[in-house]
Amino acid sequence: MVPKVVFGKGAFNQICDIISPERNGVAPFIFLVDDVFKNNTSFIEDRIPLSYTDEIIYVSTVEEPKTSQVDEIVAKIRNDYQYVPSGIIGIGGGSILDLSKAVAIMLTNPGSAADYQGWDLVKNKAVFHVGVPTISGTGAEVSRTTVLTGPERKLGINSDFTPFDQVILDPELIKDVPKDQWFYTGMDCYIHCIESLDGTYLNAFSQSYGEKALDLCKEIFLENNLSKEEVDAKLMMASWHGGMSIAYSQVGVAHAMSYGLAYVLGTKHGIGNCIVFDKLEKYYPEGVAVFKKMKEYHNINLPTGVCANVTEEQLDIMTKVALSLEPLWENALGCDWKSKINEDILKELYRSL
Amino acid sequence: MVPKVVFGKGAFNQICDIISPERNGVAPFIFLVDDVFKNNTSFIEDRIPLSYTDEIIYVSTVEEPKTSQVDEIVAKIRNDYQYVPSGIIGIGGGSILDLSKAVAIMLTNPGSAADYQGWDLVKNKAVFHVGVPTISGTGAEVSRTTVLTGPERKLGINSDFTPFDQVILDPELIKDVPKDQWFYTGMDCYIHCIESLDGTYLNAFSQSYGEKALDLCKEIFLENNLSKEEVDAKLMMASWHGGMSIAYSQVGVAHAMSYGLAYVLGTKHGIGNCIVFDKLEKYYPEGVAVFKKMKEYHNINLPTGVCANVTEEQLDIMTKVALSLEPLWENALGCDWKSKINEDILKELYRSL
Repeated sequence: MVPKVVFGKGAFNQICDIISPERNGVAPFIFLVDDVFKNNTSFIEDRIPLSYTDEIIYVSTVEEPKTSQVDEIVAKIRNDYQYVPSGIIGIGGGSILDLSKAVAIMLTNPGSAADYQGWDLVKNKAVFHVGVPTISGTGAEVSRTTVLTGPERKLGINSDFTPFDQVILDPELIKDVPKDQWFYTGMDCYIHCIESLDGTYLNAFSQSYGEKALDLCKEIFLENNLSKEEVDAKLMMASWHGGMSIAYSQVGVAHAMSYGLAYVLGTKHGIGNCIVFDKLEKYYPEGVAVFKKMKEYHNINLPTGVCANVTEEQLDIMTKVALSLEPLWENALGCDWKSKINEDILKELYRSL
Repeated sequence: MVPKVVFGKGAFNQICDIISPERNGVAPFIFLVDDVFKNNTSFIEDRIPLSYTDEIIYVSTVEEPKTSQVDEIVAKIRNDYQYVPSGIIGIGGGSILDLSKAVAIMLTNPGSAADYQGWDLVKNKAVFHVGVPTISGTGAEVSRTTVLTGPERKLGINSDFTPFDQVILDPELIKDVPKDQWFYTGMDCYIHCIESLDGTYLNAFSQSYGEKALDLCKEIFLENNLSKEEVDAKLMMASWHGGMSIAYSQVGVAHAMSYGLAYVLGTKHGIGNCIVFDKLEKYYPEGVAVFKKMKEYHNINLPTGVCANVTEEQLDIMTKVALSLEPLWENALGCDWKSKINEDILKELYRSL
């Protein structure tokens, strides 16, 4: 789990005080920042206290984060600097946070990020890394995984060394997220709560976090008695609790299918989950009904015909990727999940998207 | 915050796997165990994997933990062993957990525990320390403080080095707590949630944790549709979330007054909070009403006439100790708290207990 967190409007202004004690001689701090902030320097860049050879690297998040992208950033840092950085500070949404965790790990571990996709494969402690979410819902700020698309699969680097050493939760940083993205990412939280709470892996630890995140999601997305400022703060906490919930349980059908979609079509995680979840009445009847209400309440139109032009070969890969995520299916459907889902059922579901 | 936690029935059996990687040569692990388990060795002692010179020290919790008690345990360990211990493992309720955190700190810091009562006075990292709660409600397993009665005051050692490195939440360990103690300690959680949620220091972080802990308390103490096993698991999580809630907010009137009571009469924290809170309708009308329902539901009879034989001098000290906890009063009553509470009002309240 994340050992240190600060919370509050304006908390980002503490960044200098927070990282300074971790500065190791002239070894730089590297800030990985979502490139949406490139043209709005006053929001992030001007507030980052660069010293010595500290550097801001803007990273595109048009595509889902890849192991190759992690390897490139690590190679660049190794090439540019004599010393292992004092720390990596990720500032952005789930993609940037996952990339930052992976880069921090790969700076102290040999090989490619793809070598560590799986559970507990990381040998060496990562460099000090800080997460600063600017979009909320994924739970990436608190999770012990980093979801990456590799040459063979989309799977996280799950390890005790993955979680951030420090997280800064500043609700002000998420105030300008565009409406659609706000909704899709918020729904990532909502959906993984439904999957976790409905799953066979559930325990009282995950349940308590999942229930709180779900309560907050309902308050945020179905009630209109909150100020924008309250909504931002509560969504930040929903994301946090939702991430904690799945740390000790699992997600389910929507996430498994969304991973297949992302692997073949590059569909971004938030919107991918929404597209899939919308068609999962059979698996999560109540959860999907509430989701449709939220969608309507916020006037969200999901893309349709997503798999209309997908080839049979692509459909095979999608299905294979989704079915390979065995813990997700076992959590969703129980030990005998193989008797309940198969390639044909899954292909039909994909075709319906 | 606590960086590592395992949760689940039987999780305590993982103790060996959890501590082994932290063993530093022949430096021992010291287990501080509540002496209520002294005559029930199969429950705890037989399951503790002692190696080399590892030792179990049984500690009485008849009295609230004291700085002098911490100093004595530290002196004994220093005297008995050549090396600083590999780790301290606290197994018990809030008193044992607080003592264990303080001992872990004092093994690497000079002087007396009393020198560090306050905020951020600890200079050196504590030795590895693990918390295993066997009573739930105080939140001591997750907090960054250790409440200790010192020569001058009852106040915690609040520091980044205080929280446990690892917590083991095994609901099976709390199954045999005697009814009264179960209630009083559970109410510690309930009361600090009310104080935190009603306080002026509240923010969305603390609110979300406090609300969840409060929901769980109501489920546990006012509903009868849960199995004993579910109650134990949920109470363990209520304590956890309650502790997290006050990490970023504060407690209030009941805790301030209870500290005064403990300082002068040695009243234990859980029951002390209950005795005080029962009389605080004026400050927490709804919270006290629900508390009275819970008390009735579980047929709990609180002691009365607690301050009947207290001298004027004792009353002066009680009042002084309570009023010295300024952040608690500010949280409870606002910036102008000094206009709302004074020695006379407080003495009248104490006399009513």
